[in-house]
Amino acid sequence: MTVGSIPHPKLSLNQATVKYADLERAIAVTAGAGIGSIGLWREPVTEVGLARAAELVADSGLRVSSLCRGGFFTAFEGATRRASLDDNRAAIEETATLAAAGAPGSAAVLVLVAGGLPAGSRDLVGARERVRDAIAELEPAARASGVTLAIEPLHPMYVADRAVVSTLEQAIDIAVQFPAESVGVVVDTFHVWWDPAVLAQIARAGAGGRIASYQVCDWLTPLPADVLLARGMMGDGHIDFGPLTRAVAAAGYRGDIEVEIFNQAVWDADPGEIATLTARMFAEHVSSLWA
Amino acid sequence: MTVGSIPHPKLSLNQATVKYADLERAIAVTAGAGIGSIGLWREPVTEVGLARAAELVADSGLRVSSLCRGGFFTAFEGATRRASLDDNRAAIEETATLAAAGAPGSAAVLVLVAGGLPAGSRDLVGARERVRDAIAELEPAARASGVTLAIEPLHPMYVADRAVVSTLEQAIDIAVQFPAESVGVVVDTFHVWWDPAVLAQIARAGAGGRIASYQVCDWLTPLPADVLLARGMMGDGHIDFGPLTRAVAAAGYRGDIEVEIFNQAVWDADPGEIATLTARMFAEHVSSLWA
Repeated sequence: MTVGSIPHPKLSLNQATVKYADLERAIAVTAGAGIGSIGLWREPVTEVGLARAAELVADSGLRVSSLCRGGFFTAFEGATRRASLDDNRAAIEETATLAAAGAPGSAAVLVLVAGGLPAGSRDLVGARERVRDAIAELEPAARASGVTLAIEPLHPMYVADRAVVSTLEQAIDIAVQFPAESVGVVVDTFHVWWDPAVLAQIARAGAGGRIASYQVCDWLTPLPADVLLARGMMGDGHIDFGPLTRAVAAAGYRGDIEVEIFNQAVWDADPGEIATLTARMFAEHVSSLWA
Repeated sequence: MTVGSIPHPKLSLNQATVKYADLERAIAVTAGAGIGSIGLWREPVTEVGLARAAELVADSGLRVSSLCRGGFFTAFEGATRRASLDDNRAAIEETATLAAAGAPGSAAVLVLVAGGLPAGSRDLVGARERVRDAIAELEPAARASGVTLAIEPLHPMYVADRAVVSTLEQAIDIAVQFPAESVGVVVDTFHVWWDPAVLAQIARAGAGGRIASYQVCDWLTPLPADVLLARGMMGDGHIDFGPLTRAVAAAGYRGDIEVEIFNQAVWDADPGEIATLTARMFAEHVSSLWA
């Protein structure tokens, strides 16, 4: 296998992979590594302000592949829930603005992480119903702005405290209650690779036009003390990216593919080197397997 | 709710909950707390020898609810795999002997933990096929000895390094290829509570007579640095034991219910106090919810 020096044209660097870089630097290292697309996060966008962020994106010539993230709407009805929904409406607007600033091929996709059980509650079924209800409330705003809400199933180890949406099947079951243009799902290898039904559910999502984002990173063992930081560089862990990536391609997904890594060692390294490494490992372990 | 001083008649103390007690002491604290049943582990049995272990069990008047554990048979064909299968055959014999030594109502159930990916392999599908094949090889021996092989789906966070069987559905899909007398599944709240399909799959398992064991413990957050030790005392975590326990009962399960906790603080406490606490927390958080 020859690994070329030009990154795969569909590769996108999710900004979380270079977490300690501010937006300007994240954009610079992405473009500097020859990567054509970036996945943005709200916090670094807010840091410079939305207008300035859009300007930076437009000047860079990069595509925008998604904005992370909305969601966290499992609260019971009340002020907390209303604030969360308002914040999601703001995120929808930010998504539309940033995607419009990106180069052609940008995707107005807002990634949604559901949120965990409210403090003191053990009612998982109820929390899951409130996720569906929140999306029903937000969908008209998304549709009006041309934004796709992308429900991300998170690994079941996060169910209590971060995301009550735990499988691709469950995410699709919610998404199909709404138009495909405004509600889809995220396929993230780290979160779904263990699932015996994953290939069938990727096909199902694709058939309905529901794959709004494809994210890759590896699963490391032993899990680190903070399991949020177990996401590893492709090739460093246990995931076979071939079958998953081919399934996503066969399901009709043609968007950018984000590399999103939460990992202390990756964060501690030089962002420019990480961008270059990401392109190389993506070529070796992901794109070479389906081209 | 009144919590009586007599433990629930179906409660069984899994020996792992008092891990640092040897077999004699584990039996003593179980009986001393008024608990009528014990789930055994192979290591402490081996420590005293099978014959002596059977004697201790017989003298105690306790029921035996299961033996932990067989499995770990995902290796590729070769010496390692053959050794693992031989070891499982030995475990089947131990299960039969110990159940026969237990009081009436004992269950000849061998809990199977599948094992993770072989070192260097990323072929999850292949590993899962080898689990099925191993059970096919072992089933005649189990049937001949009157032992039920109980496939335990483990939480998906263990898929890479401990158990490639990750959901109840997947475990049942394997079990139904064999007679219900010789192959069933374990329902363990910690491993399955997150699953959106859990209640339907418990019903399915019960309808086929496939629930060979029901184990309870809680899910703690934050997860400890060693995620193997995240199992908590009932009431200390996020699991709602009511719906799960009622589903298991409605599915026709009438066997003992094991409390199995891997938790450093529990292990560091006095085993006698843990046995008493287990009975009390079981009454408060589990048995009161379906009686």
